[in-house]
Amino acid sequence: MHQQNQTLLQALNACVAACEHCASACLQEADVQMMVRCISLDRDCSDICALTARLVARGSAHAAHLLRECAEVCRLCAAECGQHQHEHCQQCAEACRRCEEACRAGLAA
Amino acid sequence: MHQQNQTLLQALNACVAACEHCASACLQEADVQMMVRCISLDRDCSDICALTARLVARGSAHAAHLLRECAEVCRLCAAECGQHQHEHCQQCAEACRRCEEACRAGLAA
Amino acid sequence: MHQQNQTLLQALNACVAACEHCASACLQEADVQMMVRCISLDRDCSDICALTARLVARGSAHAAHLLRECAEVCRLCAAECGQHQHEHCQQCAEACRRCEEACRAGLAA
Amino acid sequence: MHQQNQTLLQALNACVAACEHCASACLQEADVQMMVRCISLDRDCSDICALTARLVARGSAHAAHLLRECAEVCRLCAAECGQHQHEHCQQCAEACRRCEEACRAGLAA
Repeated sequence: MHQQNQTLLQALNACVAACEHCASACLQEADVQMMVRCISLDRDCSDICALTARLVARGSAHAAHLLRECAEVCRLCAAECGQHQHEHCQQCAEACRRCEEACRAGLAA
Repeated sequence: MHQQNQTLLQALNACVAACEHCASACLQEADVQMMVRCISLDRDCSDICALTARLVARGSAHAAHLLRECAEVCRLCAAECGQHQHEHCQQCAEACRRCEEACRAGLAA
Repeated sequence: MHQQNQTLLQALNACVAACEHCASACLQEADVQMMVRCISLDRDCSDICALTARLVARGSAHAAHLLRECAEVCRLCAAECGQHQHEHCQQCAEACRRCEEACRAGLAA
Repeated sequence: MHQQNQTLLQALNACVAACEHCASACLQEADVQMMVRCISLDRDCSDICALTARLVARGSAHAAHLLRECAEVCRLCAAECGQHQHEHCQQCAEACRRCEEACRAGLAA
């Protein structure tokens, strides 16, 4: 697998892990009611990134379509997480932003 | 969950099962070399249908985008499987065609 | 695929859908704080059932091990969901109980 | 997420990518008939590693059970891939061995 895909896969996998961790941590927060949209986006973002990573790794002809969808859900999840001061939200927002960039770079390649 | 989603979910899940079974059965065929594109499409179709089913079941705002991609991969997988006379391929082609229809009906709803 | 696997696959897929729906519906409840353990178990139960369904459908030698784990997470998720009066929780508890039974029947076969 | 989990997640994700790539590359080999067991194990190993990674990342109580199963499928996949001289098989065998070790270290922790 060439280097560009490695960078993309790392960004996708880091985003899956950050979203899964953020969703779990949000559920433990005292203000869980405030975190509902964050948890929902974390679930979708993790699932879509995880599938995208697999399609990229296997060299699927369908990877490109998923990259577009993935960039979009990462953008939304970053925007939501970025509004919360919890460390797990800030880290997740950063992972989502990097993943969105990596997806867009993958699409442009 | 309302009735339309139940029909869609059943079509998606039936397609996942048919693709997984078809890929495994193709790998056991004497003419496995002939089945390479079929196996590849089965893998992608199963993965994309499985994610779509989960997004539909959870009422995700991202389900619609996946339904479009899902209909497309189902169409391609049905076309490929439909060319092979193995029973698992014919059954998979039928499951893919029904799933494509159900995805398009879901998109139109 | 023989009849027994069809029954098992239907129970697994119904459980995935019920868990995904229950998690989303719990996140919309006014008492979301009360639903935290339910949401967490829904996530795990859905993921483990979804993988088990795919391994069963493809006739994997690893399906049996997952069936055991799947029965266990279904048991826990049914016990948690069964304590809540929301309709989505009661439906999820029922889907989990049926799935646990189907997994144990699959193991005994 | 602490450092040990990061190492484990990297090993799991590297194994998913190596298995997906290996399965696709095996399907392109002239001797695809020889690669049937390799492709089958790649599919199971990728799926089980991917779920394990998500359960680890979310801090699930069910991660430990999956780690055990994951170590076992990695061991089998490494043994099979290690018998083939294709570069993708050798790389996959190495990724599986590292992942098995990381899973066992995670279980011992």
